[in-house]
Amino acid sequence: MKTYLECIPCFFRQAIEASKLAGASPTAQRRVLNKLAKALPVFSLAGSPPEMGKVIYGIVNQVTKKKDPYARIKTESNQRALRLYPRLKKKVERSHDRLGTAVELAIAGNIIDYGVKNSLNVERELQKILTTENRLMKNNGSAFFQYTRFRRSLDKAKTILYLADNAGEVVFDRILIEEIKRRDPCQRIYYAVKSMPSINDALIEDAKMCGIAQIAEIVTNGSDAPGTVLSLCSPSFWYLFRNADMVISKGQGNFESLSSATRPVFFLFMAKCSVVADHIGGKMGDIVLRYHPGEKVRQ
Amino acid sequence: MKTYLECIPCFFRQAIEASKLAGASPTAQRRVLNKLAKALPVFSLAGSPPEMGKVIYGIVNQVTKKKDPYARIKTESNQRALRLYPRLKKKVERSHDRLGTAVELAIAGNIIDYGVKNSLNVERELQKILTTENRLMKNNGSAFFQYTRFRRSLDKAKTILYLADNAGEVVFDRILIEEIKRRDPCQRIYYAVKSMPSINDALIEDAKMCGIAQIAEIVTNGSDAPGTVLSLCSPSFWYLFRNADMVISKGQGNFESLSSATRPVFFLFMAKCSVVADHIGGKMGDIVLRYHPGEKVRQ
Repeated sequence: MKTYLECIPCFFRQAIEASKLAGASPTAQRRVLNKLAKALPVFSLAGSPPEMGKVIYGIVNQVTKKKDPYARIKTESNQRALRLYPRLKKKVERSHDRLGTAVELAIAGNIIDYGVKNSLNVERELQKILTTENRLMKNNGSAFFQYTRFRRSLDKAKTILYLADNAGEVVFDRILIEEIKRRDPCQRIYYAVKSMPSINDALIEDAKMCGIAQIAEIVTNGSDAPGTVLSLCSPSFWYLFRNADMVISKGQGNFESLSSATRPVFFLFMAKCSVVADHIGGKMGDIVLRYHPGEKVRQ
Repeated sequence: MKTYLECIPCFFRQAIEASKLAGASPTAQRRVLNKLAKALPVFSLAGSPPEMGKVIYGIVNQVTKKKDPYARIKTESNQRALRLYPRLKKKVERSHDRLGTAVELAIAGNIIDYGVKNSLNVERELQKILTTENRLMKNNGSAFFQYTRFRRSLDKAKTILYLADNAGEVVFDRILIEEIKRRDPCQRIYYAVKSMPSINDALIEDAKMCGIAQIAEIVTNGSDAPGTVLSLCSPSFWYLFRNADMVISKGQGNFESLSSATRPVFFLFMAKCSVVADHIGGKMGDIVLRYHPGEKVRQ
């Protein structure tokens, strides 16, 4: 997805938020905004928003000299989500369609996000999801919820690349990965996290803390950009991305950066801003399981 | 009021909105944002947001070569408000406290505003106001609604300077001015509008169209900045501003630019953004009649 002009005010908002979180003084915050203002005219809108995201968070880290301002928030998100784990698990176990419920929960977990201005009440949303039975399934088959296709693809895949999004959310991913493994314990699942801190995106330690190491192989994508900006990823990640039988991509940042990928991708995310909602022809808060066919993979 | 860092994303948002409204192509819109980005680092936050507003709308006009992009919107706002006039008038006439009701309506009219991102539904809000009897009066005496002080000040004033805000809203001002004149037909009221187009702020033609010429003397402030940036106003306006017995200031823009004025001012506005709401210790959507004591006027 290209960057829309409407993303630009949001870039400045994110820069303020991240600066504050990194404990920047008002003068340092202003310095961040001025640096961003200077970077803006040379930024091509053909790039995806996460590419600018990398610039923004780079400036914040450079000015504040904090490498991981979201560290505490990430740990807390993990802990909070881990406390929910037994209830999430129970919900899946009681469901008539375990995989479907796990998919719903995995997308619902995407509301744990501090990178995007979020007017949603996380606790209330989760509560709603936990008490509703397969509310998304009624949309199955629509452009926004291509679950049958997802399940069919899963049945055929031997290797799956699962692109993580935020810390905390990882616990919800674990629920889904456990269901995938339950259906076929021989499937090889790679769980890709960022190599270096990027907002509240999951790192290796988050994946481990949330229990992914026992069910999937944790890999890094070689980048610290929010989302998955392929040009910034490592060759080993490219290899996996090209050759995995199935790619499951979590979160809006990954959608923004991979929506023109040349290979098929299943995008699972919640539309958290009006720009993305308009782009997909939906509305804010929409919960999406979207199949992107890609072009034929070039070998 | 100084400019907060949180105003900066909003500057970009306003620039996009105004460019679109002026019919700018996406390339021209980008040019506006780039020019704004270049102007940002040299802008002092000690200035009020309307000072930056002047820069923004100046850039938009320069790039789009449109002098008054909001012309149509202003005329429509006037027409829409004029259609409401008989109902507004009836509401005042039926009220036990005509002046109080007129004050309420004048502030309520402040929701007609396209310069500020407005999630309020104008029609619904107006409907609510028209069907509720003196809902603000219950706050009388609080820091947010100093009506008794306002009325007392009115009783003593011989000359009143009324600072207009948006087109359309002028009809609501007319209701209040008519009540003021009804109490004391000898009071001299100056109704100050902008000299040149500035967003949807009222100009002489709007004041005339809405019927102000029959009840007050229309004057211009010598500026095209949104709000009332005194340093940019004309000497004749300064004279009026200094010497009027009472200044009634409508709208958030005037509050932002005059909140440190050295003379007493009554601010009537609706808090339309979280920055202003935080600044006054209130919340978004608050309807405010606030007395600003100023310092002793230097002669």
